[in-house]
Amino acid sequence: MAKYVGLPLALLFGFDVIVVVAFKVMHLRWIAQPAIPLSLLGSAIGVIVGFRNNSSYGRWWEARTLWGAIVNNSRTLARQAVTAIRPVTEEDVQNVQYLQRRIVLLQIAWVNCLRQQLRGLEPWWELKDILPQEEIMLLKHEKNVALEIQKRIGLLVTEAYENGWINERQWANMDDTLSRLCDAQGGSERIKNTPMPRQYDYFPRIFVHLYCLLLPIAMVGNLGWWTPLGSTGVGLIFLALNQIGTDLEDPFSNTIFDIPLTAICRTIEVNLRQMLAEKEIPALERPIDGVLW
Amino acid sequence: MAKYVGLPLALLFGFDVIVVVAFKVMHLRWIAQPAIPLSLLGSAIGVIVGFRNNSSYGRWWEARTLWGAIVNNSRTLARQAVTAIRPVTEEDVQNVQYLQRRIVLLQIAWVNCLRQQLRGLEPWWELKDILPQEEIMLLKHEKNVALEIQKRIGLLVTEAYENGWINERQWANMDDTLSRLCDAQGGSERIKNTPMPRQYDYFPRIFVHLYCLLLPIAMVGNLGWWTPLGSTGVGLIFLALNQIGTDLEDPFSNTIFDIPLTAICRTIEVNLRQMLAEKEIPALERPIDGVLW
Amino acid sequence: MAKYVGLPLALLFGFDVIVVVAFKVMHLRWIAQPAIPLSLLGSAIGVIVGFRNNSSYGRWWEARTLWGAIVNNSRTLARQAVTAIRPVTEEDVQNVQYLQRRIVLLQIAWVNCLRQQLRGLEPWWELKDILPQEEIMLLKHEKNVALEIQKRIGLLVTEAYENGWINERQWANMDDTLSRLCDAQGGSERIKNTPMPRQYDYFPRIFVHLYCLLLPIAMVGNLGWWTPLGSTGVGLIFLALNQIGTDLEDPFSNTIFDIPLTAICRTIEVNLRQMLAEKEIPALERPIDGVLW
Amino acid sequence: MAKYVGLPLALLFGFDVIVVVAFKVMHLRWIAQPAIPLSLLGSAIGVIVGFRNNSSYGRWWEARTLWGAIVNNSRTLARQAVTAIRPVTEEDVQNVQYLQRRIVLLQIAWVNCLRQQLRGLEPWWELKDILPQEEIMLLKHEKNVALEIQKRIGLLVTEAYENGWINERQWANMDDTLSRLCDAQGGSERIKNTPMPRQYDYFPRIFVHLYCLLLPIAMVGNLGWWTPLGSTGVGLIFLALNQIGTDLEDPFSNTIFDIPLTAICRTIEVNLRQMLAEKEIPALERPIDGVLW
Amino acid sequence: MAKYVGLPLALLFGFDVIVVVAFKVMHLRWIAQPAIPLSLLGSAIGVIVGFRNNSSYGRWWEARTLWGAIVNNSRTLARQAVTAIRPVTEEDVQNVQYLQRRIVLLQIAWVNCLRQQLRGLEPWWELKDILPQEEIMLLKHEKNVALEIQKRIGLLVTEAYENGWINERQWANMDDTLSRLCDAQGGSERIKNTPMPRQYDYFPRIFVHLYCLLLPIAMVGNLGWWTPLGSTGVGLIFLALNQIGTDLEDPFSNTIFDIPLTAICRTIEVNLRQMLAEKEIPALERPIDGVLW
Repeated sequence: MAKYVGLPLALLFGFDVIVVVAFKVMHLRWIAQPAIPLSLLGSAIGVIVGFRNNSSYGRWWEARTLWGAIVNNSRTLARQAVTAIRPVTEEDVQNVQYLQRRIVLLQIAWVNCLRQQLRGLEPWWELKDILPQEEIMLLKHEKNVALEIQKRIGLLVTEAYENGWINERQWANMDDTLSRLCDAQGGSERIKNTPMPRQYDYFPRIFVHLYCLLLPIAMVGNLGWWTPLGSTGVGLIFLALNQIGTDLEDPFSNTIFDIPLTAICRTIEVNLRQMLAEKEIPALERPIDGVLW
Repeated sequence: MAKYVGLPLALLFGFDVIVVVAFKVMHLRWIAQPAIPLSLLGSAIGVIVGFRNNSSYGRWWEARTLWGAIVNNSRTLARQAVTAIRPVTEEDVQNVQYLQRRIVLLQIAWVNCLRQQLRGLEPWWELKDILPQEEIMLLKHEKNVALEIQKRIGLLVTEAYENGWINERQWANMDDTLSRLCDAQGGSERIKNTPMPRQYDYFPRIFVHLYCLLLPIAMVGNLGWWTPLGSTGVGLIFLALNQIGTDLEDPFSNTIFDIPLTAICRTIEVNLRQMLAEKEIPALERPIDGVLW
Repeated sequence: MAKYVGLPLALLFGFDVIVVVAFKVMHLRWIAQPAIPLSLLGSAIGVIVGFRNNSSYGRWWEARTLWGAIVNNSRTLARQAVTAIRPVTEEDVQNVQYLQRRIVLLQIAWVNCLRQQLRGLEPWWELKDILPQEEIMLLKHEKNVALEIQKRIGLLVTEAYENGWINERQWANMDDTLSRLCDAQGGSERIKNTPMPRQYDYFPRIFVHLYCLLLPIAMVGNLGWWTPLGSTGVGLIFLALNQIGTDLEDPFSNTIFDIPLTAICRTIEVNLRQMLAEKEIPALERPIDGVLW
Repeated sequence: MAKYVGLPLALLFGFDVIVVVAFKVMHLRWIAQPAIPLSLLGSAIGVIVGFRNNSSYGRWWEARTLWGAIVNNSRTLARQAVTAIRPVTEEDVQNVQYLQRRIVLLQIAWVNCLRQQLRGLEPWWELKDILPQEEIMLLKHEKNVALEIQKRIGLLVTEAYENGWINERQWANMDDTLSRLCDAQGGSERIKNTPMPRQYDYFPRIFVHLYCLLLPIAMVGNLGWWTPLGSTGVGLIFLALNQIGTDLEDPFSNTIFDIPLTAICRTIEVNLRQMLAEKEIPALERPIDGVLW
Repeated sequence: MAKYVGLPLALLFGFDVIVVVAFKVMHLRWIAQPAIPLSLLGSAIGVIVGFRNNSSYGRWWEARTLWGAIVNNSRTLARQAVTAIRPVTEEDVQNVQYLQRRIVLLQIAWVNCLRQQLRGLEPWWELKDILPQEEIMLLKHEKNVALEIQKRIGLLVTEAYENGWINERQWANMDDTLSRLCDAQGGSERIKNTPMPRQYDYFPRIFVHLYCLLLPIAMVGNLGWWTPLGSTGVGLIFLALNQIGTDLEDPFSNTIFDIPLTAICRTIEVNLRQMLAEKEIPALERPIDGVLW
């Protein structure tokens, strides 16, 4: 907690002490204004802060659900690739296995690439063990790399259809899975690119801070030397409410309150490599200092 | 903030000063009415203003989500056009490429056209670099231009099917994408054409303003010369709450609180032209004075 | 506003005047009861009235969204009819055009018929320019006319399939569209036939009115001659909150707060006739006295 | 209202009278405790009661929506049976009609059976006019009868497919409709079998009753002889809030606040028999004493 | 209730007694601080505790709905297996029956396995009567066993298709059911692996406990010897509110407030074995001490 709302709380406590000293020691009577309508202000601020909290949590949970959909549909795509694509002739067996493996690896590349794009980082380092070097070179020319990777998966699915390895219905089911993945990508980008309207950020913050400044002035007349305690107590709640709302507002901002994208991507990689029946599978991500990235 | 709720706040401050002067200087005792049930009024107003805020934000976020769906399905339509439509014979190659390109361009035209329709503007200027001049001429006779453009995409998809360039399942998947785009268009028009019931606009506004008028009258007896400060402080919160609710109410009204349709349309154009593997791709929209249009 | 909560407000004002006169002129001291726990009552009433408001608005917006789905799927059905149904031989051309036109006209009849059913009105007058007289005669024997019209559209789609004018996938996509329209019809009927539980109607009304009666009694001791103003002010907010909730509760009740079904049906007709490339298209509905029906 | 919260209200009134008599007549001064923090308690109770109300209404409306989905998909299944199943040869005509009729009757049996299962009643009486006696005998051995009826519908659809009366896409669309009906059955059972967590039932009830006991004790010092009126008034609101929440909690409990399952089943039967073009169709259910069962 | 919030309540009562004794017997006047802004604190705490309650209940109900979807789609998968898979030749009859039975048993294994994974327990004991011993041995090498079981179901469905026992559309419908089951698995894992942000857990708890400490200090001046009663009463509500929120937060934590996964898995097993027309079907789970596990 110390780290969480520590600084503003310390400032508030300092201000409280100044007010109470001015009132009790320096006898500046005019500093006490018990008639300040604290509860009026408090409930009005409660409306806006409560609303902001709801919306922030809603954004955070929607983001988490979208990445849940990415997990689900990555597994579904892999299941479809592994169970539906079937060789027609003896010679196809190798090619089919290569194609299955390539679709699954491209999907792993896609989730890692999308993660980096959302966090505003370069994806290349993440892709270097998954895709061949030449392919990464080609991808570097694209504006939206994840989109290009998905198009390549689409072309591979059509290739499987043209070779007769899947029927048209299976092509369609895999195409549906790609569409759902495309929806999840678009949804993540929507949350990333559309912050809360600035008013919802701006007003709660100034209201809460203004309220904290008024607290000791309104309380000192009644509470006397207890003022710093009472004022810091009430202030803590409002500062915490405001801070919680701000934390979850942008779930892809690469902070400790983020959706744990790195761990999710690793889970997908583990699941998908298991489906390919690979032997060596990387370990799941573990929390660092209690935080999963 | 100055611009945001500046005028009503200044008026409120002026009124506060008049009240306090009348009370303290002119000694009009009757002007102070400390018994006015401010907190009763405040919590009742909180209910309606809080509710309106929720609904407005809900409309705004639904509008944003619908345009998110337009981004997703535009990409999906382009992916399907580029990966599914395949030539049968050698001679088809050129025709298929032309058809793919035409579907994607019509989709770019559709999003730009829909944007202008929603904002109540003429779409022709936006379409002139995307569609041939003769086609724009024909479109000018239609009541709902976006709908007509979508019908043309539908005819092209059927043409591809009749030529054997896609199978019936692929026709169906592309038709599903068109249906989802049609849903998003209808949803946007629904939000545009169905404003909040007028009572939700009317009552919060008069309640908040009435409340602001009562504030100094109820406070001057206790707060004395501090009245303008206290009254303006409380009034600011209520005015801001009301204003925020009004801002987001109509997300397609071509104001700075709009959904950034122009930027979204540009993103779609960039993504779709990338999928066509075009060389020259326009730049993404950048915020102007911190506002993305 | 005068018309909106005018009558109860006038009655409340009259009662206020009686109370204040009894107290100030006739000196009936016992009439003032300042200890009545107004704010306790006020916040408890706020809970139930706020809840009712939320639910009513939810019903209203769900109804609007269902009719938005009807708009979308009517357009989709027309797009599918116009783009998917294709003649096989030369002789079919005319029959196909007739069938396309008949499906679209039946869909226009369906929306108008559903509108009238929801509003509890006879549909026949609305159908007379859309369907032939004999067909209307036959429809008159059915319990749920809209359902029967939809069955006929279904038979026409199957007819197109049997003639080879659409393939089985296209039959399925059109059948899906009909299912979605059926869902929207059922949803509208659900909202129409399942009013809010009576308790949510009954209790807020009596609570609010009871509260209004107590207002002057509790205020007259402090506010004196200002009582009618203060009491009417607070009463107005609660009466308005209650009234707003009641207005939106039943969105198909043929009042000015309805979903504008007539305008929506006209929009559908305009869009669908445009899709048929008809020359003479009726004008969109315009608001009458600011109200769209 | 008398019946609704009559008993607890009468008890509360009696208790109020005892308290006021003890205070005013027997002069037991200690009975008055004006310092009891009624408004603190009131707003804390408001939070939990308001929350419970929301959840209960949510459950009730979800249940209603699930049965709305049952209406919609029953109609859709009937429409698909009637429009899609087509004889191949002359001899099939009769068999097809028999099969169509049997699917529709089994669906009517399914809704009636599901209704009785949800209400914890035996379904056999309801089925006796719809299914042959021998079939009912066989069904009696099954644990979940509705599930078995649906399996039989599924077998009939597959039979139609094996006879060539529907194509594989039509089989799939009807199977999708069955899946949606299966979802609605599962959803209804979920609401039936998962009551609100007991804490949400238990705590609001004891809090509200405890609060009612405190009301006269806290009020009698100020309100004197008016106490029973004031206390009963405030108590009524809280008792009503609690009661409303309890009413809607279990929407399949065979009380007057239930979803009107009997009426909905009858509506489905009327609609489905109309689709079969039957002559004699039962009448719709009418409310008994204003309650639709 | 005693067990529920018993301990903190007893501690609070003890503290209350100490405070009141210190004030009334030992005459430590400074211990009474009636000016502590209890109602300010109370409403701010109400905002955050109410919000947490909403979110917890939302998580709990979403988890229940996901398992509802698992019930529905397990039944749908079984219905599709039983009604759609049909032998081509005489010799297939046995193989088809074996395959149908194996798909259904694997599905029963899948739900039991997923349940154990979510609760952090070993699945092997649960699977031993459902799957052959060798298969369990093989499954032990997999990281996500449920996922591997589902892949095996997918391979069986493809096998049925390759043998011609289902057509491509039926393959697709069964694949869709598997995708929906995969979504429900992913959704359950999402709720399991993404706890509420720690702030929502931490702050309500410390706020509520701090508030309880302040209660007697603020009340003792007015309530005197009644303080323990008043303080424990108000404290009970806040402690209960906090506790309820915590209970439902993690619906897969193997406590008595869990989703009753064991009972749901048993229901699925009963339904699926009924569909296979098995004779011996296990009984449904019954509550133990009123708790369904």
